[in-house]
Amino acid sequence: MHVIADFTVVPVGVGVSLSPYIAELERVLQASGLTFETHANGTNLEGDWEAVFGTIRACHERLHAMGVPRIHTDVKFGTRSDREQRMGDKLRSLREKLG
Amino acid sequence: MHVIADFTVVPVGVGVSLSPYIAELERVLQASGLTFETHANGTNLEGDWEAVFGTIRACHERLHAMGVPRIHTDVKFGTRSDREQRMGDKLRSLREKLG
Amino acid sequence: MHVIADFTVVPVGVGVSLSPYIAELERVLQASGLTFETHANGTNLEGDWEAVFGTIRACHERLHAMGVPRIHTDVKFGTRSDREQRMGDKLRSLREKLG
Amino acid sequence: MHVIADFTVVPVGVGVSLSPYIAELERVLQASGLTFETHANGTNLEGDWEAVFGTIRACHERLHAMGVPRIHTDVKFGTRSDREQRMGDKLRSLREKLG
Repeated sequence: MHVIADFTVVPVGVGVSLSPYIAELERVLQASGLTFETHANGTNLEGDWEAVFGTIRACHERLHAMGVPRIHTDVKFGTRSDREQRMGDKLRSLREKLG
Repeated sequence: MHVIADFTVVPVGVGVSLSPYIAELERVLQASGLTFETHANGTNLEGDWEAVFGTIRACHERLHAMGVPRIHTDVKFGTRSDREQRMGDKLRSLREKLG
Repeated sequence: MHVIADFTVVPVGVGVSLSPYIAELERVLQASGLTFETHANGTNLEGDWEAVFGTIRACHERLHAMGVPRIHTDVKFGTRSDREQRMGDKLRSLREKLG
Repeated sequence: MHVIADFTVVPVGVGVSLSPYIAELERVLQASGLTFETHANGTNLEGDWEAVFGTIRACHERLHAMGVPRIHTDVKFGTRSDREQRMGDKLRSLREKLG
């Protein structure tokens, strides 16, 4: 099952500056081999279900290993059974509608 | 890794009445054996990582099998490495603070 | 416009124990006069758009006033134009489907 | 209070193709005058609290006016009292950490 997801990881209990942790997550994402794109509030990610959620799990494991005691994460994602769709298709379809 | 989660599944492309689908998800949750509680906007769920996300995957599979062509889901969840915590502990801790 | 919402507030930069802050939010919610119910991962809340989002804003203002430097919040919510629906209706409808 | 947000609007009860509705939301966003950027799973948006949530409300009003009977929306957002931060700052900070 193909998943198109967006997720945000919030490290709790490590002070107010989160970018060192977010940078480390970029390395986990690069190592995943999945298509991803980080934006101002999270990261878009797509792939097979197990790969996507396995990567999000790897993000939690890496941060806990760095000493983050508590992590809050939001994921929003979609699956479709009517047709194959990729992240690029969604943006292309939107741009066509906007002319 | 223990996960305390809340998730909401939104079936898309099947009309405006969603409760038949949400009722079916209750059956998936009951079959999971996990601790869960459905509220007005979603379901709280806790357990080991694989069991929690495997159950959410089973929800998607069940709805697609029922003919839902497109599903949007939000999950928010927490993990901790500093101590064990269960859903009931979170509410108890809150009630103690409120006196 | 009537809104049925669920939201979770995550105080960042104040250590790992969040329940003193969540308890304070309960007081903000009680003062709002809105129908709400706190569960293990957040709070259900319903009312007119301005009242709901004004209350969520009051939560942020209260926490910043307590010294929380950074706050991450998730809100998921629904509006309908086809009919009036209250939080209790959603759960009743689900229970009827489940028999 | 400055807000950096990401939101996803899911029209329910209008079939499986959502891009005509998402395209209309782009027009609402363009008319708002706020800084925004649409990605594969939602839109980043920033500005003063009232402007951001007023724009999200305008999105709901526009879709209901187009005949969408039911709308599910997720918003995740942050506010800070320790310093001013813009969406561009978050990405710049991340890129510096990544070297």
